[in-house]
Amino acid sequence: MNFKEKLLRAISKNNSLLCLGLDTDIEKLPSHLSKTPESVIDFNRSIIEATSDIVCAYKVNSAFYESMGAVGFEILKSTIEIIPDWIPVVLDSKRSDIASSARMYAKAAFVEIGADAITVNPYFGVEAIEPFVEFKNKFTFVTILSSNPGAFDFQYLKCGDKFLFQIIAEKFISAGFENLGFVVGATRGTDIKIVRELSGEKLFLIPGIGAQAGEIESAVRYGINDEKAVLINVSRAIIYASSSTDFAERAREKAVEYKEKINKIIEQI
Amino acid sequence: MNFKEKLLRAISKNNSLLCLGLDTDIEKLPSHLSKTPESVIDFNRSIIEATSDIVCAYKVNSAFYESMGAVGFEILKSTIEIIPDWIPVVLDSKRSDIASSARMYAKAAFVEIGADAITVNPYFGVEAIEPFVEFKNKFTFVTILSSNPGAFDFQYLKCGDKFLFQIIAEKFISAGFENLGFVVGATRGTDIKIVRELSGEKLFLIPGIGAQAGEIESAVRYGINDEKAVLINVSRAIIYASSSTDFAERAREKAVEYKEKINKIIEQI
Repeated sequence: MNFKEKLLRAISKNNSLLCLGLDTDIEKLPSHLSKTPESVIDFNRSIIEATSDIVCAYKVNSAFYESMGAVGFEILKSTIEIIPDWIPVVLDSKRSDIASSARMYAKAAFVEIGADAITVNPYFGVEAIEPFVEFKNKFTFVTILSSNPGAFDFQYLKCGDKFLFQIIAEKFISAGFENLGFVVGATRGTDIKIVRELSGEKLFLIPGIGAQAGEIESAVRYGINDEKAVLINVSRAIIYASSSTDFAERAREKAVEYKEKINKIIEQI
Repeated sequence: MNFKEKLLRAISKNNSLLCLGLDTDIEKLPSHLSKTPESVIDFNRSIIEATSDIVCAYKVNSAFYESMGAVGFEILKSTIEIIPDWIPVVLDSKRSDIASSARMYAKAAFVEIGADAITVNPYFGVEAIEPFVEFKNKFTFVTILSSNPGAFDFQYLKCGDKFLFQIIAEKFISAGFENLGFVVGATRGTDIKIVRELSGEKLFLIPGIGAQAGEIESAVRYGINDEKAVLINVSRAIIYASSSTDFAERAREKAVEYKEKINKIIEQI
């Protein structure tokens, strides 16, 4: 089963478009947990057990695990092993390099870590993304519009009569890769619509809801494709809903809240 | 001592502008070595011992180590520990993400791995690079022009009367960070001159010589700044000079060859 099939099944089974980001920061663990790698695994396990019937996917942010050194890599693997087999996992690592290096990053993500999908950066061009796309059962999300203020520096540059992000989206669309979609930040509001209109059926991963205060309404409305699929990601607003012993319970409540908010918007489309 | 001071001293001590890339691929180890993580460390140690009086810096390509999993991270750390203290190490990881994640990547590179410098990707904007630059004793190389064919997809887009890569370079120059330089691929030939003319004193890291067949002449001529510094990187053409038991000896010969070739060009400037 490829990533897309796995995702569509998880969306259907849990009736959810919520992707939960396990951006676990050892410094932000609930105060009753020790600041150890073991605690990070325990924290992730509790969050996963409390939410696996509510989400359509999990996203693990590589940066948070790398910051812990080699043990972080082990925690990342252990976390993915805890996640039920039928729920897809996106490795959010925004990788980018020339093809010979990209091949190694693809191996790291898909073979060593065991993720179902990865996020990448488009700056090195289409040819540099091919080593990821060659893993046919896996899925590659190219970052088109990021959710941070710095997105305006270059992504919105006018190149001829189009923004840079439009040209990048068009180039990847014309490459015709079936197992490739886009990351579009929820903080970009209705600009998601521009990318959707270009993209037809492409699958979107939309971060920036919650702590980054992106608009959930436009994210869902323009994010969804004809297969009724999209990954609406929330990380900090759910996993750090409480810093006390009830963190998993409160994370579950928050996750249900977001799931229902998303579903309500879907009903109104 | 900051990265720049360390680099200038190593350049002076070894009379070299050659940066040696330790892109060690476990599959390409000399045939007498077993394909184990220990062999990768042994290989790197032999290469380092044979070249530490010839280079001005080492570059470690994160992708190759990540592809080995958690143990790759340990090998990366061990390799950096083997490198003599007075020779700077660039972690070539082309990282990119929003600032909260970039902060974690900076911690991974500079605190956990112990690199002196890092390569990053500009697509998320200047604000997303700040967490790296905040490590004042460290150095950040922003990739402006990559050495692969895919560079032409977006880096050479005309945005108004300039190429995208020029606009990106200008934006980072105007940000005024002292400990920030650029990656410019040697395969881009005289376009390196365009970036140099914009950049004044900025330090360049120039990959693409050797296996990628970039032009060493223009790389040195336009790469060098007023401090007479530049990192001319060669990886595969040196470390895989021989696949036999004489690999370290042959790597040394190749490194000397490149060092002298570079110095000859310098004399003619």
